[in-house]
Amino acid sequence: MTQTVVFGIDPGSRTTGFGVIDVEGNKLRCVDYGAVKGMRRGGENDFPRRLRRIYRELCLSLQKYCPDVVVVEEVFHAVNSRTALRLGEARGVALLAAAESGAQIFEYSPLEVKKSVVGYGRADKQQVQKMVSVLLHLDRTPQPHDAADALAIAICHALRS
Amino acid sequence: MTQTVVFGIDPGSRTTGFGVIDVEGNKLRCVDYGAVKGMRRGGENDFPRRLRRIYRELCLSLQKYCPDVVVVEEVFHAVNSRTALRLGEARGVALLAAAESGAQIFEYSPLEVKKSVVGYGRADKQQVQKMVSVLLHLDRTPQPHDAADALAIAICHALRS
Repeated sequence: MTQTVVFGIDPGSRTTGFGVIDVEGNKLRCVDYGAVKGMRRGGENDFPRRLRRIYRELCLSLQKYCPDVVVVEEVFHAVNSRTALRLGEARGVALLAAAESGAQIFEYSPLEVKKSVVGYGRADKQQVQKMVSVLLHLDRTPQPHDAADALAIAICHALRS
Repeated sequence: MTQTVVFGIDPGSRTTGFGVIDVEGNKLRCVDYGAVKGMRRGGENDFPRRLRRIYRELCLSLQKYCPDVVVVEEVFHAVNSRTALRLGEARGVALLAAAESGAQIFEYSPLEVKKSVVGYGRADKQQVQKMVSVLLHLDRTPQPHDAADALAIAICHALRS
């Protein structure tokens, strides 16, 4: 049975989570997870360097795990256009890292992720995190929650394909 | 008198303009300009590759001209959060390319650019383009307009510093 490595990314301008699983038929296994932090005090001038850190750390993890598939959370709405711009900037470098890895790229909305992982599109963060732990047989919820969210995105792809 | 090379970027998800000037005292000279297009038909799945193209072409031009300063248009508002997200993604890879170049990075809002280049914050695109040609002694307006806008951002930095 073929084994597929799925690399999930939950991009954010403060913290970008990632989660790697491997999938063999119905078996899901957690390979690694983590987060690139984030938002040092020091003004907007630091922002390009923060984007560079997100990009470089994602590239390193992508090189390490050579995923077949990279899955990035798709976002359509944000609180306001300022937030959307900042989030878009983080998503931009995440998508770039994904494109550079040569893996197939998929995007799922938060609604699709919740429906796939919890079975309910309006599930809250805690429910998603709980199901991530259950589905991956983890003793506890992955921290930070951005990493748990990234694992949820990877699981969403595994369950849908 | 020291010469400074300023590299302006006007990021966009369809077309990203760039414009390079050198500045020696009050003398501004156009070095190069151009644009990375853009928006092939073929669906959203192409988007990460489009970001990669923007990133790579900007990196190539930045390596070619080794600017002292990279200036990127700052945006606070967009028509809606969907547009802001897409624009943010293009800005993200532009800022990343700027950070990788090692140059100093500055951002100016469209209002600041118009005030500096035309002297009037509510100037329209044609007025900005006209002044770019005048200030850089060009025979005609640089095309596409994204490239003219990128030159305007570079001029804005030169006039303000």
